[in-house]
Amino acid sequence: MPEVIAGIAPLRKRLALVRGRGASIGLVPTMGALHAGHAKLLNTARQENDMLIASVFVNPIQFDRPEDLENYPRTMEADLRLCETSGVDLVFAPAASDLYPREQLTFVESPLLSARLCGAHRPGHFRGVATVVLKLFNIVQPDRAYFGEKDAQQLAVIRRMVEDFNLPVTVVPVATVREEDGLALSSRNKHLTREQRTVAPVLSRALRLAADRIERGERCVESVRSQSLASFAPYPEARVEYFELVDPETLQPMERIDGPVLIAAAMWLGPTRLIDNVLWP
Amino acid sequence: MPEVIAGIAPLRKRLALVRGRGASIGLVPTMGALHAGHAKLLNTARQENDMLIASVFVNPIQFDRPEDLENYPRTMEADLRLCETSGVDLVFAPAASDLYPREQLTFVESPLLSARLCGAHRPGHFRGVATVVLKLFNIVQPDRAYFGEKDAQQLAVIRRMVEDFNLPVTVVPVATVREEDGLALSSRNKHLTREQRTVAPVLSRALRLAADRIERGERCVESVRSQSLASFAPYPEARVEYFELVDPETLQPMERIDGPVLIAAAMWLGPTRLIDNVLWP
Repeated sequence: MPEVIAGIAPLRKRLALVRGRGASIGLVPTMGALHAGHAKLLNTARQENDMLIASVFVNPIQFDRPEDLENYPRTMEADLRLCETSGVDLVFAPAASDLYPREQLTFVESPLLSARLCGAHRPGHFRGVATVVLKLFNIVQPDRAYFGEKDAQQLAVIRRMVEDFNLPVTVVPVATVREEDGLALSSRNKHLTREQRTVAPVLSRALRLAADRIERGERCVESVRSQSLASFAPYPEARVEYFELVDPETLQPMERIDGPVLIAAAMWLGPTRLIDNVLWP
Repeated sequence: MPEVIAGIAPLRKRLALVRGRGASIGLVPTMGALHAGHAKLLNTARQENDMLIASVFVNPIQFDRPEDLENYPRTMEADLRLCETSGVDLVFAPAASDLYPREQLTFVESPLLSARLCGAHRPGHFRGVATVVLKLFNIVQPDRAYFGEKDAQQLAVIRRMVEDFNLPVTVVPVATVREEDGLALSSRNKHLTREQRTVAPVLSRALRLAADRIERGERCVESVRSQSLASFAPYPEARVEYFELVDPETLQPMERIDGPVLIAAAMWLGPTRLIDNVLWP
């Protein structure tokens, strides 16, 4: 099993030695409940760094609803096994009292990037994400940090944070891992009933359809959008929260497609919320 | 004259060599217009670090009024001479386009700490200050950074940012430098007319008076405050913007003095705004 460290001071001490040897450090920040998507992050990072660190921390300040924080799956033993088979050297697993020893009064805010898509439905979420990621970066001081493309808005917020704050870390995006029928891997998929599971791939199909239309020359966003939304019509149990075409860097809406476009969507199946996205081209 | 570097990439390259030798780095962030208060920051930092860096950058995003940014004094030649006599090894003097190559979308926010005192009268100011200081910290990666106690709210915001973001830097506060009559040094003092200059020390006298009352046992904030405010009555040209007694860490108001207290005030003399503070005990 990989070494597990909970405290910030012992971790810093350990990593100072590693850096002193000139070894490169890769960080994969996670909230645990690891699946094959995380394994891909870890395997990618394993190949590019001398030392591989995974953090496992369910970050309270990014939950807008207390029951979501409480119900978030905690599977540390299985997570450690997956870390071991993925070649993780060290797991940083702090308690909430380690990362937030007293009230957090300082936050990372990116109002423009957080206003739309998931941010519109989860007030304070990206503030919490960016703040904890900045804390992890400052504690671990990795050379590279790995984030999944599935969480496209999170990735955009963090990439821009690194650039805007001149952080000495390279953000490496890792492609979404999908089931054979296209469903993006997520720790939430296990909450789906068998019937919801058969409906779930409509999300990636609708995104793929939008990308195909653009590929074939369609440039009107509203036309692409309405055609994709029609894909959901046969599945009344699928409630689309948003389906948007935005600038991949600023996440702002566009009317005409005249450059790269991020097609991003969120959908509810019963109490479970699924997100996915496709970047074109 | 000290070496001057404007670009981020050459600075990082230079400092990587310095750190590689195991040398400690001290940073004094300034907006230029250096005076004896800055000299004290530099002299303190000089004694505690192998390499001393001063940054000179008039930070556009901390000005709430465009005319203040435009009128802010730029005295680079004199600043460089003062840096030389203070033993500065390297001056980092970026252009706005170096630190803000495109629109800044990510900010440091500390709503609780910024709501009162100067923050109440300068919307966005401490967001701009904290953001640029974080950027400078990430570019220079100093072991220690030095800030004057005169800007008490700025110091509180930055200290808490360092703690809340787990930044690997030690913030060193440096005592306010005063004229013989008690007036705190400020680049704004040169804007005072001769008559305003004779009135100006009322600010530090009123603060001192408050500290003396507390020292002699007064514990009621409103009583301390009203007695100090009476000091300004003989000087109708002095307009008090605020005179507050707050918790030194959270900057929140108190009713009874039952621990350390920051007594902070701002006063206008004509178009010139002066601030000062006293920490008790």
